[in-house]
Amino acid sequence: MLQIAPTWEARPWDDPSRMLCVDVARERILAAFAPLPAVRVPIIDGLGFVLATDVVAGTDIPPFANSAMDGFAVRAEDTLDSSDASPARLRVIGQAAAGYPSDVLLLPGTAVRIMTGATIPAGADAVVRFEETDEAGHGVTAGAGSDGTIGIMRPAKPWANIRPAGEDVRTGQRVLLAGSRLRPAEIGLLAALGRATVLVHRPPRVAVLATGDELVDPGVAPRPGQINNSNGASVAAMVRRSGGEPVMLGIARDTPEEVRDKLRAGADADFLITTGGVSVGDYDIVKDVLCDVGQIDFWQVRMKPGKPLAFGHIHGTPMLGLPGNPVAAAVAFEQFARPAILKLLGRTDLAIPTVLARLADRVENRGGRRHFARVRVDATVEGYVAHLSGAQGAGVLSSLAAANGLLVVPEDLPAGEVGMTLPVQMLDWEVG
Amino acid sequence: MLQIAPTWEARPWDDPSRMLCVDVARERILAAFAPLPAVRVPIIDGLGFVLATDVVAGTDIPPFANSAMDGFAVRAEDTLDSSDASPARLRVIGQAAAGYPSDVLLLPGTAVRIMTGATIPAGADAVVRFEETDEAGHGVTAGAGSDGTIGIMRPAKPWANIRPAGEDVRTGQRVLLAGSRLRPAEIGLLAALGRATVLVHRPPRVAVLATGDELVDPGVAPRPGQINNSNGASVAAMVRRSGGEPVMLGIARDTPEEVRDKLRAGADADFLITTGGVSVGDYDIVKDVLCDVGQIDFWQVRMKPGKPLAFGHIHGTPMLGLPGNPVAAAVAFEQFARPAILKLLGRTDLAIPTVLARLADRVENRGGRRHFARVRVDATVEGYVAHLSGAQGAGVLSSLAAANGLLVVPEDLPAGEVGMTLPVQMLDWEVG
Repeated sequence: MLQIAPTWEARPWDDPSRMLCVDVARERILAAFAPLPAVRVPIIDGLGFVLATDVVAGTDIPPFANSAMDGFAVRAEDTLDSSDASPARLRVIGQAAAGYPSDVLLLPGTAVRIMTGATIPAGADAVVRFEETDEAGHGVTAGAGSDGTIGIMRPAKPWANIRPAGEDVRTGQRVLLAGSRLRPAEIGLLAALGRATVLVHRPPRVAVLATGDELVDPGVAPRPGQINNSNGASVAAMVRRSGGEPVMLGIARDTPEEVRDKLRAGADADFLITTGGVSVGDYDIVKDVLCDVGQIDFWQVRMKPGKPLAFGHIHGTPMLGLPGNPVAAAVAFEQFARPAILKLLGRTDLAIPTVLARLADRVENRGGRRHFARVRVDATVEGYVAHLSGAQGAGVLSSLAAANGLLVVPEDLPAGEVGMTLPVQMLDWEVG
Repeated sequence: MLQIAPTWEARPWDDPSRMLCVDVARERILAAFAPLPAVRVPIIDGLGFVLATDVVAGTDIPPFANSAMDGFAVRAEDTLDSSDASPARLRVIGQAAAGYPSDVLLLPGTAVRIMTGATIPAGADAVVRFEETDEAGHGVTAGAGSDGTIGIMRPAKPWANIRPAGEDVRTGQRVLLAGSRLRPAEIGLLAALGRATVLVHRPPRVAVLATGDELVDPGVAPRPGQINNSNGASVAAMVRRSGGEPVMLGIARDTPEEVRDKLRAGADADFLITTGGVSVGDYDIVKDVLCDVGQIDFWQVRMKPGKPLAFGHIHGTPMLGLPGNPVAAAVAFEQFARPAILKLLGRTDLAIPTVLARLADRVENRGGRRHFARVRVDATVEGYVAHLSGAQGAGVLSSLAAANGLLVVPEDLPAGEVGMTLPVQMLDWEVG
């Protein structure tokens, strides 16, 4: 069978030096986005979103010195020589429970029965656990306590089992910085500071439009020559996973009217993403309409898959045109749409979590483009190892479903050879 | 100042051999949970959930052989000797666009103008890109085409630029397995198979109750001796991050009636999580009520923080009692509640994503328990490095907010020394 190497020497239109570098394309796209306005939400609903302002503590945490244990508040000096054999005997002059501070003053020879979280009474400088006293039913020896006294059986270290006021946070301290992402710990901290609500950048509404006369919705049986629209669903899912709110515009047939109408429907979104209609074919009505109603650039990006890409503005809304091939659309989404959505959310860490992995399969990279190969990455004792997850055709979704990463073969490397160490973008790692 | 080493030789009640191993506690808890029933949801809403049944392809993907390029469908044999100088000249007998299959038959010497995604006409065995023809406005040479013929300027490799039917998925193929988590690629694949909905295990409703007379809701100014309830918010956030739906039961004061009422309110949930009221103090009304209305075991778990833990059933609902200290509650949640929620979701990968990190700070581990230290993990060229993220007191939330991982110091290691390599549970990695 006749073999033809698809190198660009014989095909000037494939010359990668004519194409736009992936990083330059990303920079140009990101320049069109800025964090969205802040909204005030209940702290729980702030999970995963980004603080729009610094948070300064209006109070100490804890607000008062309190007991870390259930036991007796004492003066440490009263317990110096105590032991099982000769407990220090102290008069119990009161009780202190969490939520009910005691106003007694601890004089030498006295103790206050105290529960975890209760305010430390004036005069006390240590808490002795029940187990270290002779209170009935606790500790190693039982009995006693009935005469209004308690036996302390271990010397108490000054300030033992006491949480000082402001141990965690001091009033006026800048606790959280604008730009930080809210995780459960930040939300707990906000609650401890008494905050019921928090200011975060609102999530972007991202309109998703698939174009093509061959497309029918999932659930509709395709007629001959038709296929079900998979890009609409997978792009919407990628939008949601990135923290955006997908707005489904459905399918636009390749007529100027329909494309124009659907685009208008998406004009009030913060970001508009289309799939298909950005390559060279003259059936790509989309291109004509886009140039008609907006300012759009059509790029050949130096990557594989995902070479054809469009970016610009429609009715003032930033618009990204992804290729129609499902895998090309997904790979281009991760490189260009995901960081744009993160930037709208106020995130500053826009890069996909990336690890270095040793290659277990050979990956061809003819054509001089940056090749994103679908791989399954496993963590081994020798570090991460990457296997190809299946056929690498731009339309093969099953190998993307079998993958957990995109192996990045650099533009000028003709092949990723077995044993080479190359970066892999981890698709399923959300790093907060 | 008097120094007392808190070793259990002098304090039998601190003897770790009396405590329950973390792994045993986890096993006992997980044994009480099973995946929840399946529900049918629109595929987009299945994102992050777990397939309840295998998915078998009812059709090929793609369903028919189609063109990967815009160009001309030809018989490869007609183009063998073609070149820029002497193009193979073929008669254009029709057009094929995506969604509009052509019914013409390609005889020797003929070609069909074809667009990406269009069905390959009978008789054709290759597609030649516009750039490799002399069609006006394309390729290196222009002109021609006006006489109803097209010049092919490169030999076409048989099956070049043709996507065969079933290239991605074959009818009858088991495409996705029950138990797999739906990510954008799986959702795209379901859409490509024509599925509008999918069967996933429904997410658990997890009731969250904080107990303690000292607690007031965030937004309410604490009176002397009171603090804002932070556990309710952070536990609810951890529930949501784990894939559950938090049901906030608020705060229960330490009275039997109130605890009983609140517990009843949570009885219709799939899982009930409380904070506080599980240690030895006799103000722990919660314990008495729990033993009253349910079957609950109170454990001392061989870990730090998070030693006191309760688990059992209330009105038939599994209940986990976390300690009241915010950080102890968070650490115990990650070890015991998170995997339980994942199991309810149908997940099989219940472990927290864990890396090995080199320790940059010394971590004391007196007391012979498994110590979970709050650390900041950084990826370096020499691998992961872990620094303590701040004070390690069980009440110090700020160091948890500053952490991205929990360093695990084994029970029998008296200290994690600088330079040691130890496992770190990564709190912010969601691995799909």
